[in-house]
This record gives sequence, C-alpha cells and structure tokens, in this order.
Amino acid sequence: MKELEERIRREGIVKAGNVLRVDSFINHQMDVLFFDKMGAEFHRLFAGTPVNKILTIEASGIGIAIIAGLHFGVPVVFAKKSRSSNLGDDVYHTVIHSYTHNNDNHVVVSKDYLSPADHLLIIDDFLANGCAVEGLIDIAHQAGATVEGVGIAVEKGFQKGGDKLREEGYRVESLAIIEAMDAATGEIVFREQ
Amino acid sequence: MKELEERIRREGIVKAGNVLRVDSFINHQMDVLFFDKMGAEFHRLFAGTPVNKILTIEASGIGIAIIAGLHFGVPVVFAKKSRSSNLGDDVYHTVIHSYTHNNDNHVVVSKDYLSPADHLLIIDDFLANGCAVEGLIDIAHQAGATVEGVGIAVEKGFQKGGDKLREEGYRVESLAIIEAMDAATGEIVFREQ
Repeated sequence: MKELEERIRREGIVKAGNVLRVDSFINHQMDVLFFDKMGAEFHRLFAGTPVNKILTIEASGIGIAIIAGLHFGVPVVFAKKSRSSNLGDDVYHTVIHSYTHNNDNHVVVSKDYLSPADHLLIIDDFLANGCAVEGLIDIAHQAGATVEGVGIAVEKGFQKGGDKLREEGYRVESLAIIEAMDAATGEIVFREQ
Repeated sequence: MKELEERIRREGIVKAGNVLRVDSFINHQMDVLFFDKMGAEFHRLFAGTPVNKILTIEASGIGIAIIAGLHFGVPVVFAKKSRSSNLGDDVYHTVIHSYTHNNDNHVVVSKDYLSPADHLLIIDDFLANGCAVEGLIDIAHQAGATVEGVGIAVEKGFQKGGDKLREEGYRVESLAIIEAMDAATGEIVFREQ
C-alpha cells in the first residue's frame, strides 16, 4: 500500500535496536480516516474468503482491527493480556513473548467467543518476530477455528516472523514490508510487493 | 439509547461487587456494527461542538473511540498505561486508580499529540467512579486543551463518577445509565434519559 509506505517514510522515526516509531498516526495518535483506507485494503485483499470474525490482541491492534471489522461487517475479538496464570477453564490461553519488553505475557480469549464455526482473520499493527500472531494462531487452533489469513499494517521483513508464517502456509498480507532501516540515517527500504 | 439498554438487558451479566459483564458485544467480543450506531449517536449528541480530537485510554475504550472518530472525522489519541513512573519530560502524566484491580496505573500521553489548540471529546466504554475520566481530564488540562465533553457507553449511575463530573460542569453523555442492578436476580434498572 503505497500510501502507507509514504506515510511511514514521512512520519516514521527509526531508533536503535530495530525500533520504528509510528506514534503520530498508528500507535498512539490514530489517524482514523487513514485506518479506514487500511481497512478497505484488507477487505479487498481478503475478498472471497469466508471470514466471519476478526481476532486481534490488545492494545494497539484494536484500532485497525475495528475498522477492518467495519469493512468486513464482522465482530472483532481481542485477546486480553492477563495479570495471572491462574485463569480457570473458561478461556483459551497462550504465552506470548515480548521482545520489546523482554517478558512473557499470558494471553487469553474466552471460550464463549471462538468456536470451530469461526473463520478468522488475524489483524495486528506490527509483525516482527511473529510471537503475537503465533500466539493468536495457537488460540485459534485450541478453539478449532480456521485461520483464513493474517493482515498486518507494518511488517519488519528483516525479522523473520512474516516469512516463517508464510512458510507454514498462512496467507500473510502486510500493507507495508520494511526490508531494511537505518537508525543513523533514518533511511527506510521497503520490499517490493 | 434504547437499543443499548435492550442489549445490556439481554446479554449483560450482573455479578457480585457491582460488576456488569458485557463481554459479548463491548469488552471482549466487539460488535462493530453496533459500535457504528453508538458512534453515530455520539456524533449526534455532540453536533455543533468544535471537537477536533478524541481522547481515550487503552484498552477497551479504543474500539468505541475509533468508530466515534470515524463519525467525527477526527484522530483518536489513546492514553497509555506505563509500567514505570520514570517517564521523562516528553509526556503528560497522571495516576489513575483502578477499583477493579485495586491498583494505581501511571498513564501517559505524549506531548506531541495534545496542545492548547485541541478541543477534546473524551470517550470510554464504562464510567463508574470516574477515575479514568478524571485522569484524562487532568492530562487534557496539562496540555492546555479544552474538554468539550465526555461520551460514555455504559455509566453506572449508582456510583458517583458521572454525577460528580456533571457537578463540576462537564457535559457527560452516557448512552445508557444503570440506576440499579442486582446480582441475585440479574435485574437491571436504567435511568430515564
């Protein structure tokens, strides 16, 4: 999505440690009208698939997932980070490692909201090592749901989460894929799509 | 909003300790098409105000705020819960007490995204003691922004957050106000609006 690439080039801030800040329009201040364009693009990309529900994870994935939900006309379930590992029997549960915060998060979805009847589109704002998406796929499989695909706003293509998911057979559509970025110069190179 | 009251009556689960669970359509699974109606209603209620930005707090406020943002055609800023009180000079900062989790959360908004030019609509899913909204108002005032009003999906009218805000002069519009609820019978009584 050329418009997203241009926006990242203009407003993204590359920091040391492979960090890209897009706080001005995605991660802190959310440009809702731009999200609307991204939602329309996800809908175009996954047209013809039987998606009946979107699955995301709190917090910053919710905004894009909600707008995508509006374009698909389907509900959005967000996985919750739990403070405790004592979770009871009424939830699907997985552990997602965060490289950003260097910790493990217990993540849950109520069994009430995912079932074998569900055809899921997993949406998140960023894809790097793929831990969050792999965790959501794990939860989907526990529920017996079908994963129709994965929709990502910004993929860090130089980290291996996206390509690993594609090798595993998942359809991953990222609206922008960063092939390389340089904290010293601020330069960002996108993968041709 | 009669449709919200009916939905709460049908799907809401009243639990001991003044807890109302609306996980099936607001807090965990989000009925996006219903959110769209709530967003339209907020837009109708605050028509004629110079709202140029929506302020909410992660995580469960984001969904409703995003859809409202689409109706107003304005960006949404979400306040972030911070793991540390060591925050630096580039953020507005407040502390919000959570009665649900019985802890204090450090909450921040980058100084880049709020300014004296902003006319804010504060949006959240629930209003009970009002701690979250009071915290967001504190942040708005630190930024010199104007608070045009507060839009809430579900207000617990038997707790005093909403009425306190109204006494302080804020315009608070709640789409449903619960006057009383009973965990033993499941009965919910709404305030006439």
